[in-house]
Amino acid sequence: MKSWETVAIIGVGLIGGSVGMALRRRGLARRVIGVGRSPASLQAAVELGAIDQGTTDLAQGVANAELAVVCAPVGQIVALTRALAQCCQVGALATDVGSTKQAIVAELDKGLPRGVRFVGSHPLAGGHRTGPTAATAELFEGRLVVITPTPHTAAADQEAIAAFWRGLGARVAVLSPREHDEILATTSHAPHVVAAALAAATPAALLPYTSTGWADATRIAAGDARLWQELLLSNREHVLEAIARFRDALARFETALAANDASALEQLLSDARKVRDALGN
Amino acid sequence: MKSWETVAIIGVGLIGGSVGMALRRRGLARRVIGVGRSPASLQAAVELGAIDQGTTDLAQGVANAELAVVCAPVGQIVALTRALAQCCQVGALATDVGSTKQAIVAELDKGLPRGVRFVGSHPLAGGHRTGPTAATAELFEGRLVVITPTPHTAAADQEAIAAFWRGLGARVAVLSPREHDEILATTSHAPHVVAAALAAATPAALLPYTSTGWADATRIAAGDARLWQELLLSNREHVLEAIARFRDALARFETALAANDASALEQLLSDARKVRDALGN
Repeated sequence: MKSWETVAIIGVGLIGGSVGMALRRRGLARRVIGVGRSPASLQAAVELGAIDQGTTDLAQGVANAELAVVCAPVGQIVALTRALAQCCQVGALATDVGSTKQAIVAELDKGLPRGVRFVGSHPLAGGHRTGPTAATAELFEGRLVVITPTPHTAAADQEAIAAFWRGLGARVAVLSPREHDEILATTSHAPHVVAAALAAATPAALLPYTSTGWADATRIAAGDARLWQELLLSNREHVLEAIARFRDALARFETALAANDASALEQLLSDARKVRDALGN
Repeated sequence: MKSWETVAIIGVGLIGGSVGMALRRRGLARRVIGVGRSPASLQAAVELGAIDQGTTDLAQGVANAELAVVCAPVGQIVALTRALAQCCQVGALATDVGSTKQAIVAELDKGLPRGVRFVGSHPLAGGHRTGPTAATAELFEGRLVVITPTPHTAAADQEAIAAFWRGLGARVAVLSPREHDEILATTSHAPHVVAAALAAATPAALLPYTSTGWADATRIAAGDARLWQELLLSNREHVLEAIARFRDALARFETALAANDASALEQLLSDARKVRDALGN
């Protein structure tokens, strides 16, 4: 397993903090430097064992990095990666953890200064909790990380980023940025909108009459509104298409209900159950 | 706290089994008799401590009951209650745990033989697990049970059923059967359809690309298709209205997305989050 000399993590929240903890716990980096905006939060990350050192100065934080992992909101990843490419090691690698890939990779695939190369990543891990205190060294174990190389990506760089995630315990899948965004629109982004609409359609006065079903179905709606706004707009077309397909599925249930068609409704529920059961828990 | 001489539980699954365990653990009944269709399942319920004795014979099971709790699918509650009223103690009380109330109560409010009275109940507890092995004595602790008296319900009967549920640790709310069904359409039945449609709209090949968000949002879709078909059809009009309101909420998200309107989208997400956060966990 390749071990890194210095890894810089830009943004030490749930994902960035977990990357740091996993790297340090597994002895995969000699030094993990955290870059953030809040000195208090960086101090907390040091105390939690997520990073060796923290700094609010990007240039200083990445100065010796041979790998930079940008764990920032999707709206900031391009600018941060361009900025860090100016001041990290010549020839360093950069990756990210953004939940959409097409817009980000299209920008960064145009090339970065000083021989720096970017390979996009998206770990399908996390949840609705946020911040370094929610981070764990096990967050990526057994989870899938999608990496999104392009025709310009060198095979060695792709393999280095894949090995990085496998080193943290993850499984790695390779998709084009466009494939990634199409798929995630269906499996993550549209479900988020549906969950939010379900919460929004529930008058607060009726919350005492909800049970575990409603609580589960709307849990992702507790996510950060700003982050999700940026994320959804960065994958707008695919998300709208996925919502349209969801609407079609919903309309089939409504048709069966309106027609009082017990066997059609039961078949629809049974088909949906099969998909859900295939996932497990 | 009133203690019952003999309580019969018709249907010893998750809810019925939990009623029995809680009654016995709390010493609220001298005898708990379970009535079911499967001798093996009744035997399991005895071994789990949910009931003192089990029988597949309804008449025999309810013969000495002063309270009968019908824990059957909504489609069977009316027929079972009418049948048990023929053979339980004269003047016994009956209640149920059905997730819809209007159709059931309308039938049973017409009167039952031999001085038997019915007061409808719906404990907002449970989950996607089923069967007596999922039952626990704590299932109702701190949970809400809605009881649905009518203008024909005697105050003493309403209070006896309320006291029964409070004895199991639940809080009790009183709604008319119609109010109950309107509210539950929004808080439970429409969310079930939405979750099922979300699962149905996801090609099985994409399941490896789901994360905790999709798993949470679709969890209730793993519910029994037959039970949910009956339940949804027994509250058809209200469910269709609640789905229509959900569609309107979803359309507002789609409009903001289609217009690339970041501030409108963020406001919608933020409003949805406030509703979800008001529930907690």
